[in-house]
Amino acid sequence: MPLDIASITSRADAEALDRDDPLAAKRAAFDIPDGVIYLDGNSLGPLPKAAREALHQAIETEWRTDLIKSWNSAGWINLPLRAGDRIAALIGAPAGSVLVADSVSVNLFKLASALVTKGAGLVAVERGDFPTDGYILEGLAKLSGAGFSLIEPDAGVAGLPEEGGVLVRSAVHYKTAEIVDIETEEREARKRGASIIWDLSHAVGLVDTKLEARGATYAVGCGYKYLNGGPGAPGFVYVHPSVSGDLAQPLSGWMGHRAPFDFTDGYRPADGIKRFAAGTPPILSMTALHAALSLYEDVDLSALQTKARTLGDLFLARIAPLALKCVSPGPGEARGGHVSVRFKDGYPVVQALIDQGVIGDFRAPDLMRFGFSPLTLSYAQVFDAADALVATIESGRYREARFSKKGAVT
Amino acid sequence: MPLDIASITSRADAEALDRDDPLAAKRAAFDIPDGVIYLDGNSLGPLPKAAREALHQAIETEWRTDLIKSWNSAGWINLPLRAGDRIAALIGAPAGSVLVADSVSVNLFKLASALVTKGAGLVAVERGDFPTDGYILEGLAKLSGAGFSLIEPDAGVAGLPEEGGVLVRSAVHYKTAEIVDIETEEREARKRGASIIWDLSHAVGLVDTKLEARGATYAVGCGYKYLNGGPGAPGFVYVHPSVSGDLAQPLSGWMGHRAPFDFTDGYRPADGIKRFAAGTPPILSMTALHAALSLYEDVDLSALQTKARTLGDLFLARIAPLALKCVSPGPGEARGGHVSVRFKDGYPVVQALIDQGVIGDFRAPDLMRFGFSPLTLSYAQVFDAADALVATIESGRYREARFSKKGAVT
Repeated sequence: MPLDIASITSRADAEALDRDDPLAAKRAAFDIPDGVIYLDGNSLGPLPKAAREALHQAIETEWRTDLIKSWNSAGWINLPLRAGDRIAALIGAPAGSVLVADSVSVNLFKLASALVTKGAGLVAVERGDFPTDGYILEGLAKLSGAGFSLIEPDAGVAGLPEEGGVLVRSAVHYKTAEIVDIETEEREARKRGASIIWDLSHAVGLVDTKLEARGATYAVGCGYKYLNGGPGAPGFVYVHPSVSGDLAQPLSGWMGHRAPFDFTDGYRPADGIKRFAAGTPPILSMTALHAALSLYEDVDLSALQTKARTLGDLFLARIAPLALKCVSPGPGEARGGHVSVRFKDGYPVVQALIDQGVIGDFRAPDLMRFGFSPLTLSYAQVFDAADALVATIESGRYREARFSKKGAVT
Repeated sequence: MPLDIASITSRADAEALDRDDPLAAKRAAFDIPDGVIYLDGNSLGPLPKAAREALHQAIETEWRTDLIKSWNSAGWINLPLRAGDRIAALIGAPAGSVLVADSVSVNLFKLASALVTKGAGLVAVERGDFPTDGYILEGLAKLSGAGFSLIEPDAGVAGLPEEGGVLVRSAVHYKTAEIVDIETEEREARKRGASIIWDLSHAVGLVDTKLEARGATYAVGCGYKYLNGGPGAPGFVYVHPSVSGDLAQPLSGWMGHRAPFDFTDGYRPADGIKRFAAGTPPILSMTALHAALSLYEDVDLSALQTKARTLGDLFLARIAPLALKCVSPGPGEARGGHVSVRFKDGYPVVQALIDQGVIGDFRAPDLMRFGFSPLTLSYAQVFDAADALVATIESGRYREARFSKKGAVT
């Protein structure tokens, strides 16, 4: 039952929502500084206490004490698959179909390359989608001879200029937080003999993507946003088990070999998703992500998505007096975990908010972006953050402030 | 002046060497468990105290407290170049020519791809060199249409079947610890219009490679062996500044873009080595490596290489009564940081040594490999380790032991 946001007119109303929130207890699993309202979990998730503990164990027991034998005794060797299974559960993929490895960019290269090697003659991305996706496809096209196309925003697979191409598409847009209808796009792709690689960077840990049920075969995604895996946490790659055995990816390093410790010349890929591993993975960073993922084990995915949207709706309702142009879907519409609004002095406003402990981010030329990570925020915090934005703009105080900080990383 | 190893006949002699060792003080910078003689630093370096401290700071101050702003305030955004500069000093490369990023495998792919894009028609590796190098070149060849060749061991660039090819070659061999003469190989490569990508995984932090002075233009290497950067620490890539501006690498992710935070469509590479960055780097793992590298700041590189070899010589001299076949260069010959000897029951012997706190490793079918990381070991420890090996084999005790552990990671 959707909440009637219009009925939330006081902080006490917001606090009442928190009392009924099935996810409220999760906030205690994070260590967030007092006095901070962190609306940038869509860029870098805050520190889960479980990640701190796992890192301590990885440093003191696994690396310091057990040294090399931890590859076996601490299960480092299987960590990419163990972390992958936790992500599989979140994205609606079968166990064993997700590998944590490398970065989104590198994983996208592997997957798109494998499809090119299998015969796809064109790789494409929508104009205005997250830039690294296009950059990587450009690089692949130049190396492999495949075509590269920048298609119109929101065109989807229907915008591909030829049959049999590969479209890389964000399931949730990094600027607008619009959610793409995966099932409809996949149906369209099948008609056209096209393939879609879903970029789940702004979707995973937030939107219930149900990949397998909706016919999605390929995806990549990010570990450091809603998954709270730590700065630059490794990314992941998903391939449906029905096709992973047919794919050859060119970053065919020893960790994706069928028998890496035989040290033989001649690459023979491991079964399934494991062949998407390349080199030795960064165990410390991966340990933090694996531990952070434990927070999702008992989470109802639809509750997660609903809370994120409701937090955004509450925020939009409270800042309505400012009459800012919102480039995200409006109240009540399907939307991912953040809200982007335009304001010509957005940069100093975001800085003035940061000085008040309300941390959002700014995207040139005039976009203020506020993220509503549902595990880490309360309704009361979002209520306060919206009021802080209204007061900052209405008072004009941001004009006097002086700032030295420049933009941060999405 | 080379040591006369034959004169070291007692533990007191070894202790005397330790008293004169200019690197002896470095051992206090590591936290290694009591009772352990760790001869596997060529596979996973032990924990530097500086890495522990830096990780604590990265977790508590940078991630937990400063959150997203640490990309600027803690310098995360420049960490790949800052860590790269520390490695540049170790390999004899100009400042600004080394980037820490991804894994050895992925960096090798970038570099070999860039050379193929520039016109190289063939990529090659020696049979029996570290397998991932060949696996990656196979993948690149399939995707790009370049030829792939496995040439004979020790053939070097002279073994390339055509002009203008790319040879990937380990500067120190992972099995034998043989050291390649970089200068001679580079001279030969120039005659043949060939390029060499040096794999420094078993050389960096150990051998004084003097890359620029010896005419080497391209290299990759590993952060988790002698550099002690932690399990799966990121690798690095070096390109001489005179050519990096001419290279286009296909893993052209946003972190290698000239202006990543403009979020524009269309890839424009950053200047110099920075264009070899792909996705967002694993900051926690990279932080450990960056801190570990600080231990090298005041180290004399020739002292480092000399100590590693002398430790190996001492070990070989002490185990001479066993008359084992040594596949590494013998006493007094140029050799990297480890010694490999054959013994048919090598596997249970290595396990029996581990049970005594002497940690080496085993490579099928019969290779016992002992690493002599010069920052972390004393002469007395190596003296004791050799005696333990002799006693274990001579007593035959290893035959009764039962072990469950399987091989570990190089």
